[in-house]
Amino acid sequence: MEKLILHEDWVSGNCYKIRLTAALLGIPLERRQYDVLKAETRTEAFLTQVNANGRIPVLQVGDRFLPESNAACWYLASRSPLVPDDRFDQADMLRWMFFEQYNHEPNVATVRFWTAFVGLDNLSEAQLQQIPAKRAAGNAALKLMDEHLAGRDFFVGSCPTLADICLYAYTHVAEEGGFDLGAYPHLGNWLGRIAGQPNYIGIGA
Amino acid sequence: MEKLILHEDWVSGNCYKIRLTAALLGIPLERRQYDVLKAETRTEAFLTQVNANGRIPVLQVGDRFLPESNAACWYLASRSPLVPDDRFDQADMLRWMFFEQYNHEPNVATVRFWTAFVGLDNLSEAQLQQIPAKRAAGNAALKLMDEHLAGRDFFVGSCPTLADICLYAYTHVAEEGGFDLGAYPHLGNWLGRIAGQPNYIGIGA
Repeated sequence: MEKLILHEDWVSGNCYKIRLTAALLGIPLERRQYDVLKAETRTEAFLTQVNANGRIPVLQVGDRFLPESNAACWYLASRSPLVPDDRFDQADMLRWMFFEQYNHEPNVATVRFWTAFVGLDNLSEAQLQQIPAKRAAGNAALKLMDEHLAGRDFFVGSCPTLADICLYAYTHVAEEGGFDLGAYPHLGNWLGRIAGQPNYIGIGA
Repeated sequence: MEKLILHEDWVSGNCYKIRLTAALLGIPLERRQYDVLKAETRTEAFLTQVNANGRIPVLQVGDRFLPESNAACWYLASRSPLVPDDRFDQADMLRWMFFEQYNHEPNVATVRFWTAFVGLDNLSEAQLQQIPAKRAAGNAALKLMDEHLAGRDFFVGSCPTLADICLYAYTHVAEEGGFDLGAYPHLGNWLGRIAGQPNYIGIGA
């Protein structure tokens, strides 16, 4: 495999997903840290050389750049046991990864970022007004996950896949955004199963 | 392949993506219509039998149900020329599909839905207040696409992939939401290339 460099901010769950995928598969990653609170991903150099969308994470593969956290996880894990071979299961895994980016991340991750990192005092009026709706939508996503996990150990099939890793990243720190994970017992058990995987690393590792 | 039923609302670009993918590949789909304006995807029957998330599209494969439009496109197109074999290109295709669901659809599609289908007079105050930010973010997504297409015919590699189909769905009707596609000439040429593909069908077909 070509040399891999992860352009990231380590506190971001989207960046952690990629590190966790790499750790579970034993793939070495070089890391470059950017502080999003200091707008280090909006500099002219970053926009022209790394990602025109001004966001991290970006996985650099040799001299090519791959934005979007879940796409980077796919790059690392394709042809590994973290991606099922079965045609339906593979699409179903992607279903949960798209759910994560559409229903979960914009709510659970954004509320965590605003409350625990930016700080409520620093939010705009428009941001403050969005918090109740984002909290409700985040809880709806967590409830859907909890109900899905009622009769199963992992999101797809009987082994961990990228669906679990991508959903784990922001779920396991959701309490930093004020979400009460105690309300979701199946989710709590599943978090423990992911943290118990061989070669698991925490978000601060 | 097992019998395929698309649970959909035909005016939705997310549903059209799946029909267009199936048409380009010559795959027959049975269609079931739901009117989202009448909350037909929030009934108890729909939530328990089709999708607990209360959304369309859902691709039914035999007796299994696959939500999330881009995952359904993947199911239909995996192992076809619409999904590149190359490891980086495959991940790069998914990168644009995640971009579509994160940066494009919540802005371009939502503004179109609110203005052309729900009607501005029927929006809540909270929805009305979100329109300027969603219009700006939608234009940023269209500009990023336009710049990417400046030197190339398709989003990934030299042939159409699911990245093109998924981004085409809401881009080609963006003017229904008041977006000015005339500002994006490379995007305009690309829209024509997609509409010229063999077996292409329109959103109203």
